[in-house]
Amino acid sequence: MSLQKEGCTAAPWAGCATIVPMLLVELIRKKRDGKELTREEIEFIVSGYTRSEFPDYQISAFLMAALIRGLSRSETAALTEAMLHSGQVLDFSELSGKKVDKHSTGGVGDKTSLIISPIVAAGGVKVPMISGRGLGHTGGTLDKLESIPGFNVNLSLDQFRSVLGKIGCAMIGQTAEVAPADKKLYALRDVTGTVESPYLICASIMSKKLAEGVDALVLDVKTGSGAFMKDDKDAAFLAELMVETGERMGKKMVALITDMDQPLGNAIGNALEVEECIEIMRGKGPEDLRILTIELCGWMFYLGERTKTVDEGKKLAQEMVSSGKALEKFRELIEIQGGDPLVVDHPYRLPRARHTVTLHAKADGFVTGIECEQVGIAGVLLGGGRQKKEDSVDPAVGILLNRKVGEYMHRDDTLCTVHYNSRENLEEALKLIENAYTIGKNLPVTARPLIHRVIQGKSL
Amino acid sequence: MSLQKEGCTAAPWAGCATIVPMLLVELIRKKRDGKELTREEIEFIVSGYTRSEFPDYQISAFLMAALIRGLSRSETAALTEAMLHSGQVLDFSELSGKKVDKHSTGGVGDKTSLIISPIVAAGGVKVPMISGRGLGHTGGTLDKLESIPGFNVNLSLDQFRSVLGKIGCAMIGQTAEVAPADKKLYALRDVTGTVESPYLICASIMSKKLAEGVDALVLDVKTGSGAFMKDDKDAAFLAELMVETGERMGKKMVALITDMDQPLGNAIGNALEVEECIEIMRGKGPEDLRILTIELCGWMFYLGERTKTVDEGKKLAQEMVSSGKALEKFRELIEIQGGDPLVVDHPYRLPRARHTVTLHAKADGFVTGIECEQVGIAGVLLGGGRQKKEDSVDPAVGILLNRKVGEYMHRDDTLCTVHYNSRENLEEALKLIENAYTIGKNLPVTARPLIHRVIQGKSL
Repeated sequence: MSLQKEGCTAAPWAGCATIVPMLLVELIRKKRDGKELTREEIEFIVSGYTRSEFPDYQISAFLMAALIRGLSRSETAALTEAMLHSGQVLDFSELSGKKVDKHSTGGVGDKTSLIISPIVAAGGVKVPMISGRGLGHTGGTLDKLESIPGFNVNLSLDQFRSVLGKIGCAMIGQTAEVAPADKKLYALRDVTGTVESPYLICASIMSKKLAEGVDALVLDVKTGSGAFMKDDKDAAFLAELMVETGERMGKKMVALITDMDQPLGNAIGNALEVEECIEIMRGKGPEDLRILTIELCGWMFYLGERTKTVDEGKKLAQEMVSSGKALEKFRELIEIQGGDPLVVDHPYRLPRARHTVTLHAKADGFVTGIECEQVGIAGVLLGGGRQKKEDSVDPAVGILLNRKVGEYMHRDDTLCTVHYNSRENLEEALKLIENAYTIGKNLPVTARPLIHRVIQGKSL
Repeated sequence: MSLQKEGCTAAPWAGCATIVPMLLVELIRKKRDGKELTREEIEFIVSGYTRSEFPDYQISAFLMAALIRGLSRSETAALTEAMLHSGQVLDFSELSGKKVDKHSTGGVGDKTSLIISPIVAAGGVKVPMISGRGLGHTGGTLDKLESIPGFNVNLSLDQFRSVLGKIGCAMIGQTAEVAPADKKLYALRDVTGTVESPYLICASIMSKKLAEGVDALVLDVKTGSGAFMKDDKDAAFLAELMVETGERMGKKMVALITDMDQPLGNAIGNALEVEECIEIMRGKGPEDLRILTIELCGWMFYLGERTKTVDEGKKLAQEMVSSGKALEKFRELIEIQGGDPLVVDHPYRLPRARHTVTLHAKADGFVTGIECEQVGIAGVLLGGGRQKKEDSVDPAVGILLNRKVGEYMHRDDTLCTVHYNSRENLEEALKLIENAYTIGKNLPVTARPLIHRVIQGKSL
């Protein structure tokens, strides 16, 4: 295709574009000029793209226009709905009780999903959870689950429904049937500089989560140096957008803006994180992870109408832990999804790295910061994460932090233990981890709270 | 390619994108965020795309970002230069005398190129002209030339050089060697809603024109209902951009903002327009076309340092017409490019439509407006233009206007004569033409000037 003349102002019938319907170009222009698209127009774009009727190059131009011009609330809702209905929308209404899920925007050491599912299911609210894999410096729930020998995250939707019905929770990866539009759109956004739009992120997350057939959704929107949204304002904007979008579709919604300025918990690395989750379910483990998990569970019980208040929900969550019911549910979950349930009592059955090395403090002082991104990247360098989507991960490697922000250290105290199998990239990883720590003579002046803000849906 | 996780903030080494260098995505993001790209970065984008190293979907996202965020003057110049150097840049410095070209942004009935080339060449300034085809409601120089039996616009660049050296002018179509980046980019812009950017238009036009190896360039930027730029402000902005861009590359530049609120001259249709051009070169023909042609030639002589002032240039242009030298040059041009030179003296040798029909005024009054776009579209419906790039054109059909804006008509006076070969679409075409005319009891209150404004380069 070539054209030699500038200045084509095509009348609708005198289309410059002959390959694709003129209408799409008109919609791109409309969004480009900052005008609002109708529900039908957005549906036209999304469904056509899902059916591969529109070429990538038109959709990427549209996405860029949408990113720069922004979307109205109704455009965002329409986009979410169109993406949601591009595939199968699960309906678990024949299963008794409420279905509630949690979604986190992702971070380093964020393993709450593995603890929350068993706790909430044990407490009587169903958790149909579809999760993702790790990419770049952030980990993914599926990779963590797969570090449990035999655990199968690739259930069919029928199996998913069956497991959920039997034990009250089920954890799988996104299937081709769920929100296929999001898969195509995200892959395109990823390579066209159109990821960083709260509107597009909202539609991407919500279209997948609403396809799970839940009655309510608890969002964990991370903020801080290790989060996608580096500052509270952006995180709150995205959170509000998602809460409003979910409510428009009749879901009970809440978003917690939580801290990701240092890794969550002490373990980074798939098997190490599973072990830490088991610790938490035994009532032990790092405080920040325990507090956040209980908080999220509290909201899930409240939104799932299991308890009258969030505080009651948190109490119920604590009970599920102290009674051992959560751990028992986790055992059930592992077993029903094909994994080795003995890992719960014998964590040594999880993959273990062949070597460890400890890093030590070079001076006395307080830990004033731990850069998530560097720690996360170090984990990838060790082989525990992905640089590219195609990479495989080593489940055994990772980092166990001995000190978190605010703790005092003496010179030569252990900062962390690094678990590795290969010396390739080890030096680089160690350097990153060492540099991730900042040590100061004084305590950090303003300690960051674990939970920055709670944004509740209007219906609550 | 699929991805399930929102929130990938890839470090440069931890690329989400594995297909293409991460750098391009970073440049897209940079422009998206309104930052200025360096010369090297723009060169990287353009040269990579020309070599088909980057996929369309990334470049269309970049183009949309560039359209919405705009480009700085240095970005525009860098883009123009990168596109210019994507192909062969002609160098006619071994040919004596200055080389000057004219470029028009296009309109209905705009046939000045066919008159200007012979006049200016006859006057001693060389005109190496690379032109385009018609698309949509606007015509194209190549189609007009090809209505002359035998005329070959597909010369090689060597033949182009040879003809230019021999007779002082040569008229060809864009070849694959000239600004290939523009061909690829324009085809993509055409279908992604990224045509309407003055920066991108400037780079597209100027990269092609500067490849012609000219010393100076006269721009005819159309404004009005039939122009790409509907209002003077936009036209002037584009004109200034092009003048500045050309000057940055050491060319003498001027832009005339001229009227395209009604068709230029009386003839619309390829062969009919050639006949009108011959009329002008005989010192006859419609006044508006004559005035504009002489004005443009005046500037070309001045910029080509053939005369000391524009007025002297205009006088020289008049002389070339009245002495018959322009017509003689046109005859030479036709002959050397393989056409039938006898058409100059015997216009009946041009293709003629088999049928004509006249349209008549329905009431007494002044012509207060003739909608270019409708007349242009009518010409396409008759078969004289293209709805799609692949369409062939019927050189014979068209419209001869008997009345222009400001003229008084009595009821039943002839408005225009329509030349057609097929009755297909005829009714629709006639309706469009009839509706294109507006008739009022009073003269238009503010007559639009033919030349709205002149924007001179700083070096003049």
